[in-house]
Amino acid sequence: MSKISTKINVGNFFEDFSIGQKIIHPLPRTITEGEVSLYIAFTGSRFALHSSDELAQEIGYNERPIDDILMFHLTFGKSVQDISLNAIANLGYAEISFPNPVFIGDTVRMESTVIGLKENSNGKSGVVYVHSIGYNEQDKEVLNFKRWVMVHKKDKETMIGINEVPTFAESTPIVEDINIPEIDMVDTNATGGEYFFEDYEVGERLNHPEGITIDDSDHTLATKLYQNNAKVHFNDHMMKSTPMGERLMYGGIVISIARAISFNGLQNAQWVYAINSGAHCNPTYAGDTIYAYTEVLDVIDHSRDDLGLLRLRTVAIKNQKSDEIESPKGEDGKYLKNVVLDLDYTVIVPKKKTKKQ
Amino acid sequence: MSKISTKINVGNFFEDFSIGQKIIHPLPRTITEGEVSLYIAFTGSRFALHSSDELAQEIGYNERPIDDILMFHLTFGKSVQDISLNAIANLGYAEISFPNPVFIGDTVRMESTVIGLKENSNGKSGVVYVHSIGYNEQDKEVLNFKRWVMVHKKDKETMIGINEVPTFAESTPIVEDINIPEIDMVDTNATGGEYFFEDYEVGERLNHPEGITIDDSDHTLATKLYQNNAKVHFNDHMMKSTPMGERLMYGGIVISIARAISFNGLQNAQWVYAINSGAHCNPTYAGDTIYAYTEVLDVIDHSRDDLGLLRLRTVAIKNQKSDEIESPKGEDGKYLKNVVLDLDYTVIVPKKKTKKQ
Amino acid sequence: MSKISTKINVGNFFEDFSIGQKIIHPLPRTITEGEVSLYIAFTGSRFALHSSDELAQEIGYNERPIDDILMFHLTFGKSVQDISLNAIANLGYAEISFPNPVFIGDTVRMESTVIGLKENSNGKSGVVYVHSIGYNEQDKEVLNFKRWVMVHKKDKETMIGINEVPTFAESTPIVEDINIPEIDMVDTNATGGEYFFEDYEVGERLNHPEGITIDDSDHTLATKLYQNNAKVHFNDHMMKSTPMGERLMYGGIVISIARAISFNGLQNAQWVYAINSGAHCNPTYAGDTIYAYTEVLDVIDHSRDDLGLLRLRTVAIKNQKSDEIESPKGEDGKYLKNVVLDLDYTVIVPKKKTKKQ
Repeated sequence: MSKISTKINVGNFFEDFSIGQKIIHPLPRTITEGEVSLYIAFTGSRFALHSSDELAQEIGYNERPIDDILMFHLTFGKSVQDISLNAIANLGYAEISFPNPVFIGDTVRMESTVIGLKENSNGKSGVVYVHSIGYNEQDKEVLNFKRWVMVHKKDKETMIGINEVPTFAESTPIVEDINIPEIDMVDTNATGGEYFFEDYEVGERLNHPEGITIDDSDHTLATKLYQNNAKVHFNDHMMKSTPMGERLMYGGIVISIARAISFNGLQNAQWVYAINSGAHCNPTYAGDTIYAYTEVLDVIDHSRDDLGLLRLRTVAIKNQKSDEIESPKGEDGKYLKNVVLDLDYTVIVPKKKTKKQ
Repeated sequence: MSKISTKINVGNFFEDFSIGQKIIHPLPRTITEGEVSLYIAFTGSRFALHSSDELAQEIGYNERPIDDILMFHLTFGKSVQDISLNAIANLGYAEISFPNPVFIGDTVRMESTVIGLKENSNGKSGVVYVHSIGYNEQDKEVLNFKRWVMVHKKDKETMIGINEVPTFAESTPIVEDINIPEIDMVDTNATGGEYFFEDYEVGERLNHPEGITIDDSDHTLATKLYQNNAKVHFNDHMMKSTPMGERLMYGGIVISIARAISFNGLQNAQWVYAINSGAHCNPTYAGDTIYAYTEVLDVIDHSRDDLGLLRLRTVAIKNQKSDEIESPKGEDGKYLKNVVLDLDYTVIVPKKKTKKQ
Repeated sequence: MSKISTKINVGNFFEDFSIGQKIIHPLPRTITEGEVSLYIAFTGSRFALHSSDELAQEIGYNERPIDDILMFHLTFGKSVQDISLNAIANLGYAEISFPNPVFIGDTVRMESTVIGLKENSNGKSGVVYVHSIGYNEQDKEVLNFKRWVMVHKKDKETMIGINEVPTFAESTPIVEDINIPEIDMVDTNATGGEYFFEDYEVGERLNHPEGITIDDSDHTLATKLYQNNAKVHFNDHMMKSTPMGERLMYGGIVISIARAISFNGLQNAQWVYAINSGAHCNPTYAGDTIYAYTEVLDVIDHSRDDLGLLRLRTVAIKNQKSDEIESPKGEDGKYLKNVVLDLDYTVIVPKKKTKKQ
């Protein structure tokens, strides 16, 4: 007779979290050339800094750094089994920053601290707020963000009454000491873009013309690569008995595709400095084609004379061209049904003086 | 006028094999970071030893070793064109062992010796038994197994009458000198699992909750990566005119997915010591979702005080949750139609004394 | 109010090109182990020189070189956004050569010169002829070819009247100084093929038995990896409103699959010396199964005593076995509807004296 084991990790429920609790997420990950190649295969990304050691060296690096969004996925994925395995919804992100670059061969890991808990009034679930920090093997911070998810309660009958909600900065603060090397030289023939920081203005809207269709294997291979084990992305058998009827795409896939599409017009914006906030407005499924447009929300000068920052809003739309919608929300203030991502983020763009003559 | 070439390799038929015959399989393969990344993308595997150089070094390695099952596929794939290109069925495996670890940059190759031949009574086919050994570039054994396949005869009219069947050990013998470094320290925060050798008991059953759906590109990309060229896995045009009606998934894919799913509950069982036997009970096709449960068949102590071994039986099921079946076989002694793998194997688990305090 | 940006690169139209114009294609690319592994996963390629450092060293290299066709795709992909983003059709290639080998870690880039322009008589489009050269990071030529594409005009009303058409060599010239190391030794047990240069004869036809089915994710992942951003390959939403009705496969995918299939019978032809010309006779879509046969057009001796060259014609067919068609063209001189590639190319094959005894 077999005995059912209790060694199975069923993830954390609302009652398993407490304010101040520190969670060390398992699975440190050594990032390799394999991840870098696969990321290009998944997204078609063409930001040159991440494609060429020669170009990275000309800019001022010893070697090309890992794409910030790829690093985010690889690091973030580790937190799923502790934070959001029983999540009803990923509600939001705030203050995402990338304090230090990551290179091929680095090993990243992540830790989280619970900073807020709010029981829902129906007593069946609650919202967990965490502050998560990713580190490299030298214990340098490589990722820092806050996140909140709605999680099931174990005991849906008893109210706990906790309601501690943290506040977040409206955007990720910009520090004086930006950790990228002094930019020696930007060869626009190599990056593919002729525009520099000074060329962009507030209110400018870039209708990126490309559309990229995502299939089942594309998104499941990527999400498995990130060791993100949220069941909704992988288990078609289970999803068939839900209202969705099929596997839901990991929202990070849409962020990656939208960022890759934004290359056309933002070729020299090769660094994501921060993600201020983001909403996955509607679900994305295999077969959907992603389009995107970008608005320049702010043009932010910096004391460094080689670079400035652009605060951008990139909106991703499924199965509709980017120039066919004016605003992501309708007159009722709700997101249009084809809008799948509303991302507020900040990129670094070199100034004109860095242009290779 | 063109002349039809006779240079095409059509594979070996039953008559092409003889007892004692030695076959050097072509295509030595240098294993790279690319294979390691792709394997994680194919399976979502989270065994930390294969994900992190830092963690491998803490355990006692210089660098992370290649996942045993990945190494099996990459090495095994080479034998297909010589042994099983004309196979009617892959009948069984025995005494699979992994004598030495393989690392990124190693080059593996394989040789086989024919150890048995049994003509079927209908005269149309026969069973070929081989003993296959994989080596690294220093000629150290990295894989050792026995395998038998049913192969077509060229001349289906003439009986040969050969009937030499080898015997196999019921399980792969366990040696004194296990070739993994003395385990310095297991950080359960990093491996994601708190259970050690002493925690498992005979008869314990782990119902792994995850299910992973496999699509066409997933399994064909993996099987091509392994340079396994069995036609049934790749040629949809050909398969449409067979009773199967579509491409059959390489059985090794199911082994890999089942092993990846078994992580939940067996996080510290990071080494496959041996595969004692395995049956691919039913075919698997694209779109199937794989679930798995594991039973502890035996708890095997070892003279080394840092580790012990567990003999496990992992059963993979398609499109049915692992806790919904009690036994893989029905009352008639036959495998249930949803059961796709019955794997008897032995893993190494560190003892409690290795736990990082 | 947002202001529509003019920073979007919409690609070049016929009027944007001028004879003698030099175009530096952006996106230098460092080639990694990831690309090499993915290429094997995409194609199942088994040419041993590209799979094993040990074998490459035995032949005379320091390490295994990159597969010539993979290098072609990675380098060629960069020219799409400048040359063929607005292409109506890729009309042809000529004089493709691979002057120097490329290795893992090399960074490749490409430049083109416009060598011909021919306006079409309808005034709506024209043909652009370019001479493109790929370089490694030491500015050595690694790829050299000519190509012509039909491109839309911006102003379809006004005739320009240009008609400068270059001439091309009927086949890529063969130089005295072939840039591969003196071949020390070919181990036929490792390459999987027993035939050498002297074994092939003009008129010989190899009916390769394998068929490989390509799915959506296979071809889109590969094309994105090559950073080839031609919209017809990625955007299913757009393609649904065209007569094709779905994404068109990048023709290079078919070349790669046909080359991989040609392994059976040409195992020692591990180097593509040149592509003389090629036609993508019919479109290929996801779900198609590719078969191929090869005819030996010419047997070309060389002053080097370790190697010779074979001029080959490989014909790829979709959803029909390679031995089921006699000629790729029907009695009307047009390609049969299942023929998808007619490739005239030259490979290097070692002579018998190099065989390992």
